[in-house]
This record gives sequence, structure tokens and C-alpha cells, in this order.
Amino acid sequence: MKGKKILLSEEDIPKYWYNILPDMPTQLSTPLHPQTQKPLTPDDLKIFPKAIIEQEMSSEKEIRIPDKVREIYSIWRPSPLVRAYNLEKALGTPAKIYYKNESVSPAGSHKPNTAIAQAYYNKMEGVQTLTTETGAGQWGSALSLAGSLLGIDVRVYMVKVSYNQKPYRKSMIHAWGADVYASPSNKTQVGRNALEKDPNNPGTLGLAISEAIEDAVTHENTNYTLGSVLNHVLLHQTVIGLEAKKQLEMVGDYPDVILAPCGGGSNLGGIGLPFMRDKINGKDVKIVAVEPASCPTLTKGIFHYDYADVAKMTPLLLMYTLGHNFMPPSIHAGGLRYHGDSPILSQLRKDGLLDAVSYMQTEVFEAGLLFAKTEGIIPAPETCHAIKGAIEEAVKAKEEQKEKTILICFSGHGHFDMSSYDTYLSGDMKDYEYPEGKAKEALEYLPEI
Amino acid sequence: MKGKKILLSEEDIPKYWYNILPDMPTQLSTPLHPQTQKPLTPDDLKIFPKAIIEQEMSSEKEIRIPDKVREIYSIWRPSPLVRAYNLEKALGTPAKIYYKNESVSPAGSHKPNTAIAQAYYNKMEGVQTLTTETGAGQWGSALSLAGSLLGIDVRVYMVKVSYNQKPYRKSMIHAWGADVYASPSNKTQVGRNALEKDPNNPGTLGLAISEAIEDAVTHENTNYTLGSVLNHVLLHQTVIGLEAKKQLEMVGDYPDVILAPCGGGSNLGGIGLPFMRDKINGKDVKIVAVEPASCPTLTKGIFHYDYADVAKMTPLLLMYTLGHNFMPPSIHAGGLRYHGDSPILSQLRKDGLLDAVSYMQTEVFEAGLLFAKTEGIIPAPETCHAIKGAIEEAVKAKEEQKEKTILICFSGHGHFDMSSYDTYLSGDMKDYEYPEGKAKEALEYLPEI
Repeated sequence: MKGKKILLSEEDIPKYWYNILPDMPTQLSTPLHPQTQKPLTPDDLKIFPKAIIEQEMSSEKEIRIPDKVREIYSIWRPSPLVRAYNLEKALGTPAKIYYKNESVSPAGSHKPNTAIAQAYYNKMEGVQTLTTETGAGQWGSALSLAGSLLGIDVRVYMVKVSYNQKPYRKSMIHAWGADVYASPSNKTQVGRNALEKDPNNPGTLGLAISEAIEDAVTHENTNYTLGSVLNHVLLHQTVIGLEAKKQLEMVGDYPDVILAPCGGGSNLGGIGLPFMRDKINGKDVKIVAVEPASCPTLTKGIFHYDYADVAKMTPLLLMYTLGHNFMPPSIHAGGLRYHGDSPILSQLRKDGLLDAVSYMQTEVFEAGLLFAKTEGIIPAPETCHAIKGAIEEAVKAKEEQKEKTILICFSGHGHFDMSSYDTYLSGDMKDYEYPEGKAKEALEYLPEI
Repeated sequence: MKGKKILLSEEDIPKYWYNILPDMPTQLSTPLHPQTQKPLTPDDLKIFPKAIIEQEMSSEKEIRIPDKVREIYSIWRPSPLVRAYNLEKALGTPAKIYYKNESVSPAGSHKPNTAIAQAYYNKMEGVQTLTTETGAGQWGSALSLAGSLLGIDVRVYMVKVSYNQKPYRKSMIHAWGADVYASPSNKTQVGRNALEKDPNNPGTLGLAISEAIEDAVTHENTNYTLGSVLNHVLLHQTVIGLEAKKQLEMVGDYPDVILAPCGGGSNLGGIGLPFMRDKINGKDVKIVAVEPASCPTLTKGIFHYDYADVAKMTPLLLMYTLGHNFMPPSIHAGGLRYHGDSPILSQLRKDGLLDAVSYMQTEVFEAGLLFAKTEGIIPAPETCHAIKGAIEEAVKAKEEQKEKTILICFSGHGHFDMSSYDTYLSGDMKDYEYPEGKAKEALEYLPEI
């Protein structure tokens, strides 16, 4: 029998996260204060614990993972690396396809890798409550799990339209003992203002961010958390790539191409950065962000300072952006609907080290279903993007009759996204393509920096 | 760091299933023909492939698992055995609690262990289509997964009330390319008759069984499959207990008590029978069926020949039963709403080798939430029963200040049961208790045998 899964033992859970900041060919530009546009100081970041602020700016390449965090990781980590033999066979490709299965976490995605770490550091500094926003609910449920395991309260502001459409992510949050409010809510001034203007406001991620920040700022012992984009989030996610590298070594392999879905960048950074380190040092490996054609930040965005939220409350970050006022179409991969991108990944893209492609959502679901029917596991809509990218690479390898090793991040399962599969299977799914050159229009809304 | 998970490699997937039939102290009574009440012959079972009929009556203790089945098992098997340190700590118990995590299969439960095997044997004998019934959808989705991986068509008759209330199990079935009909349907005569009498008939499992059997009988190259109760189903599930035994050996442990939820008996048989073999040979181990108080077949039923379905189409089986005409209250653990029980487990119960307890559904969900908050994973309502039983054993061990090793079958996750958690958390969940002695009333409906 050919072995499918490459497994590590719990002792192999990495002891250090990999921090790419000191290795980057171009140093990361400093975030700027949203009002003064002056470089941000640690004082401006007081909604985060000190340990996180240090990590956000650290020049250490290796940052020790606390024992308690490793212990909680061990509930599901190391995650399996799996050879997708059946998918390869269905495609008739000479390429090898491996997927790193992050769907095995109790929350069903890679998000707990950073949620556990963030909850831990906050707990250590005496914080009693964490606030956050969530769109489709993957991040909100991951933070709730972390809060439950580390004994810290969690309040989640969930975009109202998702709150109503995805009731079971909300149930998960409740099951882990956290509170979740439909945003806009009457819990914050910014929420009350929005409701006063329009009691039926369906909410946006930007508004939910503003509510979560206001909640943290106006309550004692309460901090804010973010599930993607920032440096410390990508840092925590590097356990994915560090494990995958070790697992590939065990079978004497190394990827020619690595693909991951990319919204804010946390799972792409997680699987990709430990290999990017090799690439910076001359290794030939292609690392690819797979984006939705409707929100193609890295493929069609502009590289510019922009706000991370709609309400312009967050610092200005130098990144690829479609403009903070861009409202992506409500595609089914809710986790990829973000106007900006991680500053780290943006700079690597700018420097020509990171590739990016984009696909329509119908072709992405078609790929996801082929995976489900051959490999068994039903992927999250976000994950389907990486699968589509891998299939394209494998088909190319077949045409060229070239062996090739493909590695993807299987970021999550689709158990809470089955209504999206229903839409696809009924033939009612629509495609949206972001027009070429449209991102330039955003420039007039951006500060001249 | 204390190791949580005890992992085996793919080579450790058992090569043989364990067949308890030749080891049973009392030989199993022959099933009887539903009309003639004469012992069943292999000819009466033509809706199953020959290999399955042989297994149903085999006197071989070890039955070889086909390579292809082991290869598909390797998508998720061997499943982890996990030490529930956090739950132990929360209970302050000296007991060790291990759970065998069967929720890691792509369908989210132990059901694929037999679905894969059944689909394989049918495929080998040239069958093109499999039919089955499903209540809450765990079995229907598992068989659809198997059909997809083995290239065999699947038609599922899903009880209409579940079809409407649990839409996402239906979506899963569709994602794997199978067909699913709300039962009663207009696809069969028995379905059309039911709809003619009452177009709003909500369906029952008994009716769905009748539809699936009629479909198989009236179509070429079409066979029927069952997901629990029968000997071959329990046989296939013994991979659970065989692996768990090996995993406990690796840490030098052996269970004092084993608990599993019990509806038709497939996961209890799966984890329990390899240890029952030891018990029959004199080993001191307690094996416990955990039942819902509303449907306590082994705790309050009578030991008698009865039909496996409401429509009296199936053979008569000697088992504990609450009567084939008993309609269990619509509790949230849909998989445990069955009037009868596996003949193997029933006979072992009759012979005093199997223990049984029952709990109310609110206390069962309370236990499940404690597990979710301490161990992370949200259990299926069925699985919560085993957890409740384990907690009771662990609390007893605390009171007696006795070390004890507890093993449970974590049969599935609750991702498709979140509305049940909502009901519990809202305080609206009701309890039902089956009255003492009521099962005797069923006798008047049963044939005198």
C-alpha cells in the first residue's frame, strides 16, 4: 500500500516560529498613524499586548513558541501532509500533489494557529476580554475556541448579513462560550450611529472592525485581535510551512510550486514564508497567491499606503490594495473578500518573489468538487482556490510531460459552507471579474504619501 | 510536553476485521423470514452481494480486509487515540480518559468504515447502484462518499422531516455526486401509496427502508445497504477497537471501562468487540452501551424476535426491542432513535457481558459542551452520550479515589448538528423518559416465536 499521509509526532511541533522580517530583501515600510500620517509608535498599538507588539516589529528570525501554546497546538498538530494520489490519477498528471491539511483543527481551519497564540499572550498580560470582528465566521469561531481553552472572554462582532446567513458559525461561537453580536450592534457608538441612519444596515467587515476596536478601547482589561494581514499573524501561521517542509524532507521531496488561497494572507504566509526564506537564498521555488477574480488584490491592485478598514480607524499600511472604499461582490469565499493584503506579502510581490493568479468562483467550485470526489474531503470555498491553482499546474505538467512537485495549503473544510455548494450545483452561481485598471480610481481616495 | 495523541502509521491499519460470531458464548439465533417465520436462507438475502452474505454468517474469527479498502481507509485511518487531559483536569478525577476520534473521516463519523467495505464488495460483484435510507444523514453521506471513491452510484432515501431540517447533510450527499430523495417519494410504489394517503407525510426511517429495498429489488444491478444492526456492519467497524487496543498497548494501558453511544450498535460494536473477545476469555473489562432515556432499547427493552423496520419487510431478528411500531420522540441524537439493536450486542447483553445505561438529552448536551470547552472538538449529539457516561465514571473514580482507565468512542463531530446546540443553549430542550415496563406492551404486536 502506498502511504498517503506523512505524519509527524507531537514532539515535532515546531519550537520556533519563523519571522521573515530580518530576511526580507526590501525592509518593510513603517505603518503610519491614520490621522497624523507619522510613523506608528508602540504607544499607538495599546490595544495589543506587549509581546504581540514586539513580534510585529521583531528582528529575530526565530521566535520561541511558548510551551502552553505548543501543548494546545497538540490537540490537532502536527497536521497531516497528504499525497493526493487519487486527484493526480483523475488528472492523469505526472505531477505530485501534496496538501497540508489544516482543516483538522477543532474550528476547521488554520485560524486557531494564531488565535491560540494571541489569546495566550493576552492572558499572560492579565487581559480578561478579547474583541474581534468576523465575516463568514472562521476567525470568530477560532478565537472563541482559543478563549475557551485559555480561559479568556471573547466578544465577536459578526457582519449582520453573515450572522443571519451562516447561523451555525454563530452556534459554534456560542458552544465555546463566547458572545457574538450582529454588526452593526447597539453595543458601540459607531454601531448605534449606523443603526440610527439605517436600522436595516446589513453591516460590513470595516464597520465590524470599528465596533470591535471601540469595544476594546472603551473597556478595562479588554484588547482587540486581528486574524490576518499583520506581521505577527503570519508569524504564528509559519508552523504550517515549517511542518510541511519537514514532512516533505521525510519523503525526500521539495516543492517546485506552492499555492494557497489569499485574502489577507495568513495561510499563504503560513505555508509560504518558510520556503520564501529558501527562495531569498537562491532556491528555485514558485510561491503563488490564488485570489478570486472579483477581488484580485495582488493581481490587479496598486501598491500604496491605505487603511486596513473602511472607517479609516486603523493605521495606514503599505500594501497592494483595491482601495479601502472598495466593496467586493458577495462571493462565496467570504474569507477572501478583502481590499488589501498583508504588508509582508505585498512587499514580496513588489520585489518579484511572490506570484499571483486569480480565478472565477464557478471554476473554483468545480475544482473543489473534483477534489471532494477523488480525495474525499469537502474543501472550504477559500481552499477551492488553491485546489484550482494546483489543478492548473498539474495539467500544465501533463502537457509538458514534466515531473513537478506541487504543495498546497488545504486551509479549511467546507462543513459550514454547504449552501455555497448548493448554489453551485443548482447552476445559479454567478461570476464577477474586477475590471483591469479600475484600482487606479482608488488613488483619489488615498492619502498622498 | 505531555503527548495527547497516540498515533499509528498507515501500515498499522488492521489487515483483518475481527468476527466475534465463533467466539460468542451463546450462538446467535438465526434470522427468520418475515412471512414464513422459517430460518432465513442466503437466497432470501439477494439484495446483498455474496461476500457480504458470507460475512454475515461467517465462522472465521479473522476476515481479511481487501487492499483497496485499506487504501481508502488510509485517507483518515488509523484514527487518533487521544488522552483527554483537559477534561480530566476539569473534573479533578484520578481517572484517565481516552477518546478514539472517529470524527476525522471525510464524512465526519465512523460510518465510512463499513460504507467503504460494502461499496467495495458490491463493486467487485458488478453492482452499479446502491440504495439506502438515512435519518439524520450520517449514514447516507458516508455511503455517498464511498460511492464517489469507488465509482458506484448511490441513491439515498432520506426521511422527509430530516431532509427539510438538515439541508446540509443533503448538500454533502450531492457534493459527492449521489442522489437523495425526500421519503416518502414518488420513486417507489410504497412511497406513492404513502403520499396518496397523506401528501404531507413527514416520513419515518421504516418507510425509507421500505423505499430503498423496493428500489433495489425492482432495478437491475442494484443492491441495498444498511449502516448498522447487522453482523457484517459490526464486523467492518472492528477496525476502531483493533486500532485502539494497539494504541493503548503503546502507552502500556488497558481500559477498565469502554463506553460508546448505542443506537443500532455499530460504533459500540466497533470499539467494543475486540475487547469483548478478551472479556469472554476472562479479562476484567466493563463494556457499556450508552442510550438515550427516550429510546433505551438495551436498558428497558425486551429480548424477542422482531422486525427491523416498521413495515415488517425485513427478516425477524432476535434482539432487544421496544417494538417495531414504537415511534421514538424526535430527540436530537437522530442516530440513536432505533427501536431495536444489533443481534450480536443483544445476545451479549442477554448473557450479562454487556452493560447499558441511559441518560436524558439535556444532561447529555451539558456533557458535550464541557468536552467542547476543554478538549476543543464539538461532538455529535450521539457522541455526547458516551462523553456523559465517561464523565459519570470519572466522577465515581474521584469519589472512590481510584485510578481507572476509561475509553470512549468519539463517533462523530457536531458540525451538522449545531441547531441542536442552539436549542440546548436557549433552554428550550425537552427531556423524554421511556416508561418502565412499557416495552411489554409491544409483545402483542410481535409474532409468537
